[in-house]
Amino acid sequence: MNSPVRPFPPLDHTHGLVEMVHGAGGRAMTQLVREIFVTAFDTPALRRGDDTARVPIPPGRLVLTTDSYVITPRIFPGGDIGSMAVHGTVNDVAMSGAQPLYLSAGFILEEGLPLSELAWIAGTMARAAHEAGVAIVTGDTKVVERGGCDGLFITTTGVGVLTDDRVDIAGDRARPGDAILISGTLGDHGIAVMSQRENLSFDTPILSDSAALNGLVERMVAAVPDIHVLRDPTRGGLAATLNELADQSGVGMVVRETALPVRPEVRGACELLGLDPLSVANEGKLIAIVPAEHTDTLLAVMRDHPRGHHAALIGEVIADPDHIVQLETALGGRRIIDWLAGDPLPRIC
Amino acid sequence: MNSPVRPFPPLDHTHGLVEMVHGAGGRAMTQLVREIFVTAFDTPALRRGDDTARVPIPPGRLVLTTDSYVITPRIFPGGDIGSMAVHGTVNDVAMSGAQPLYLSAGFILEEGLPLSELAWIAGTMARAAHEAGVAIVTGDTKVVERGGCDGLFITTTGVGVLTDDRVDIAGDRARPGDAILISGTLGDHGIAVMSQRENLSFDTPILSDSAALNGLVERMVAAVPDIHVLRDPTRGGLAATLNELADQSGVGMVVRETALPVRPEVRGACELLGLDPLSVANEGKLIAIVPAEHTDTLLAVMRDHPRGHHAALIGEVIADPDHIVQLETALGGRRIIDWLAGDPLPRIC
Repeated sequence: MNSPVRPFPPLDHTHGLVEMVHGAGGRAMTQLVREIFVTAFDTPALRRGDDTARVPIPPGRLVLTTDSYVITPRIFPGGDIGSMAVHGTVNDVAMSGAQPLYLSAGFILEEGLPLSELAWIAGTMARAAHEAGVAIVTGDTKVVERGGCDGLFITTTGVGVLTDDRVDIAGDRARPGDAILISGTLGDHGIAVMSQRENLSFDTPILSDSAALNGLVERMVAAVPDIHVLRDPTRGGLAATLNELADQSGVGMVVRETALPVRPEVRGACELLGLDPLSVANEGKLIAIVPAEHTDTLLAVMRDHPRGHHAALIGEVIADPDHIVQLETALGGRRIIDWLAGDPLPRIC
Repeated sequence: MNSPVRPFPPLDHTHGLVEMVHGAGGRAMTQLVREIFVTAFDTPALRRGDDTARVPIPPGRLVLTTDSYVITPRIFPGGDIGSMAVHGTVNDVAMSGAQPLYLSAGFILEEGLPLSELAWIAGTMARAAHEAGVAIVTGDTKVVERGGCDGLFITTTGVGVLTDDRVDIAGDRARPGDAILISGTLGDHGIAVMSQRENLSFDTPILSDSAALNGLVERMVAAVPDIHVLRDPTRGGLAATLNELADQSGVGMVVRETALPVRPEVRGACELLGLDPLSVANEGKLIAIVPAEHTDTLLAVMRDHPRGHHAALIGEVIADPDHIVQLETALGGRRIIDWLAGDPLPRIC
């Protein structure tokens, strides 16, 4: 018999780098998972060390959603890939009206990524999850050789439960006559990331709006259970989201340009960069489509919440066999808001 | 008013390539998702076109697991990254004794990936899910520019439910005196992938054992609800898995070399490549740790199932404050089975 196996020395969180062995399923991987992820996320299911989490779930309909995050740069004004991977997936669960409960997180790491950056990102994920009231209960780590991926990709999956049988919020439920509301200003996330990427600086710094919206949605659904549609206008911005919803529901839409909330500094940056704020990504905003009679109630609830101070009625759903989204311009004309053919801001989420 | 927006022409599934616009959140992305993923997976939740799936769930404990797949080559003898992304995650859910029900799938695609390959992989995922009795109900697609990732990464998350309150299967439940069983031969997956990677050919072709084990587990748990541990020995092989379990449970283990089922052709390939079959990955095998009195019952059930024909009793759990896993060699000696310090087979799953 040889002598007992010696434990590894602790990870060097200051100067250490991710190595291939950290994804090999052996002792080094277990150490990385324990010292970085279990320490940050600190949930009983993770501490137990199994590949799966077993967690209680209240009765109701299960809501499941997943999103991969490949944003570059990974750290930007107002957030980073970690906080976003939590906010984005929490929000997708919330957009069904469900209460988000649990997250899983799959990490694909490039050999050579600084452990200090990984620990930082795990920390922001943990804080974002705590603030949103969700637990990160299981995960996975893979390492690819240098050049095999761009630093760090995160895929989060969110699980929630819909306990109120009356709630039926879905993209195919917009009806002619419904009001279209937005929870706040457009384009903040995309412009914050773009300014970091292009090394632009503005007199007023533009921060990403990345935030969890489940608290806001909970209030909205409690006040108006008959909300027809909720959707967060992320990739492709308001333009892509409204077109997708018009297509899903088989309706047209009219949006009033003068009603759209856009920060002056974002509008200025968009002009500088040749971007349309309608097509720029948001990460902490939602669109609500509701029977028109609920407009005032819902706007009041939204404006009373920190994530909905700038909520506004921006337009209405109309009957249209061509499912076109129209913009009523400041001058009273109308133009089509098309889905973008190209991609002005790749790797935005 | 302009004329209505023209629909895109259909994707060119033969010669088309993934483009950045397929990840941009607009019309091209919707088209890719519909023509490739919704067509292949064909579940009502996906067809509805929302970012989230709402699905029924029976009462019980929820089981959640996630895994990212970065294997290279993406297509190998006996499977591909798609079938594996289903099998691996279904198996992780099953290793808790739960019934796997739903999967989500997040795709990170490299610009330039042939659409024909993506459609092929979506097809094998769909077939694997169908065979395992699970539904792929939601997903996400991101595209990174050429060089931003290595072709295609898939992250699947599995959801299952544990309906039998008696079942408590976890990695920290191995007890001294328990029997250690394996469901079949060791090393087939790793050697199949390695032979493809290194362009080796053998007289008897070696196929990956990639397969869903939930059917086998269902029978095992029905026969012996008091199974203590189930675990699939994937990355790092049997050696890493037993060490992880010894560590989690605070026990030692003794495994008999002569009892380990290894195909002669796999043993030969391992000798040729300088690999230890104990450290080579499996994708369709499980380890079961059970009170010794259930050994015969469980072996009979396992051998009666197509995924357990070569099931064998390979060793036992012992008390050991150092949590060492020992191999009793063919000659009667003992050596430590250590976790690998290095990584003989990177990107194996």
